[in-house]
Amino acid sequence: MTRGTKSRPVGKPRGAAISDLTAQRLSVYLRCLDDLQRAGVATVSSQALAGRLHLNSAQIRKDLSLFGGFGVRGVGYSVGDLRDRLARIMGLTRNRKVVIVGAGNLGMALADYGGFNREGFSIVALFDNDPQKVGTVSRGGVRVLDIALLPEVARREKAQIALLAVPAPVAQRLLDLVVRSGIKAVLNFAPAPLRVRPGVVLKSVDLKIQLENLVFHLTRAERA
Amino acid sequence: MTRGTKSRPVGKPRGAAISDLTAQRLSVYLRCLDDLQRAGVATVSSQALAGRLHLNSAQIRKDLSLFGGFGVRGVGYSVGDLRDRLARIMGLTRNRKVVIVGAGNLGMALADYGGFNREGFSIVALFDNDPQKVGTVSRGGVRVLDIALLPEVARREKAQIALLAVPAPVAQRLLDLVVRSGIKAVLNFAPAPLRVRPGVVLKSVDLKIQLENLVFHLTRAERA
Repeated sequence: MTRGTKSRPVGKPRGAAISDLTAQRLSVYLRCLDDLQRAGVATVSSQALAGRLHLNSAQIRKDLSLFGGFGVRGVGYSVGDLRDRLARIMGLTRNRKVVIVGAGNLGMALADYGGFNREGFSIVALFDNDPQKVGTVSRGGVRVLDIALLPEVARREKAQIALLAVPAPVAQRLLDLVVRSGIKAVLNFAPAPLRVRPGVVLKSVDLKIQLENLVFHLTRAERA
Repeated sequence: MTRGTKSRPVGKPRGAAISDLTAQRLSVYLRCLDDLQRAGVATVSSQALAGRLHLNSAQIRKDLSLFGGFGVRGVGYSVGDLRDRLARIMGLTRNRKVVIVGAGNLGMALADYGGFNREGFSIVALFDNDPQKVGTVSRGGVRVLDIALLPEVARREKAQIALLAVPAPVAQRLLDLVVRSGIKAVLNFAPAPLRVRPGVVLKSVDLKIQLENLVFHLTRAERA
């Protein structure tokens, strides 16, 4: 697939691996910059970002310098410029087609999740192997197709992302099918350890970490 | 994300706020220490942790020192000791009862989510206002009760955590009911900005951040 690249990777260490935690911080920076932009703030220092985000300012400068240091000493970062660069670096400036594998409760919930269909993502179809589900439509209007059609539909629609919402015991098998269908990025919700070949991006949503985090704050509140 | 917690820290700087990102890093440290312990590793330096987690070692030392610095210069941290302290600090050493508000697709999926019911959390009940759902049981055996019973059941069961899985337009109203029922920690899945009074911990799961993160990695892979 050819890429219309206005934005070639801005950054010194061309091949350097960016960790998942770094990438998550980029999302957090992006949200913070969105807020600042809406509030009419024109420039921000790494110290001010650090204060807002409770991060170490050296960590922030390090993260941002991975993509070329665009801060100006004594002035800081231009909010609008940094926001746009981050969005471009993160690949969020064009629409991505998403398929959902598994039309159980979670798949149906994901199909209709308000946050996804708004900007940048469109959900193409849900897939399942249950004949009772195939042909039905989610509340939000996403159709359930037979899993056998996944390779064909994924190629025709140029789907790039799959959300894997299937039971843990069958997750690896369906992940393999997703990858054979030409999809290169998978967000997995099954609590199962999965493997993909190099070149495919797999990320798992661990709801237990979220719950642990909540318990941490609750515990602190209780002890206060 | 909205946080209503005015919690006080357990560690040294009594007045310091622990950010959400710090708390998430603690979960990540805990998982890493679990892995090291299983692998039979006895001590670990902040540099080695930094390498495994692609974090800055100063950031790690700073995070851990918030709870008292238990590393020994030149030796590092005792894996088992640090793991147990972290689990205790995070409040993960006793069982917590959880209610789910909303028995739609997401609520049902959460009720049966494999990761929750294992260690540390037990799901007490699902609540909904739809008479067609009340009285049914999730695949995993969690019963759907009338939302009117929430205050009574939450108090009787000493539920401490609610998962809010309702449509965005009614999320604030149901959050208020949850809080009036004596529950002090809420994990929200509705894509809606919510508010709680001080003393209540509210955390929102933003699936879009996860998707953005995936796109970031996908974009890097495409550009490589």
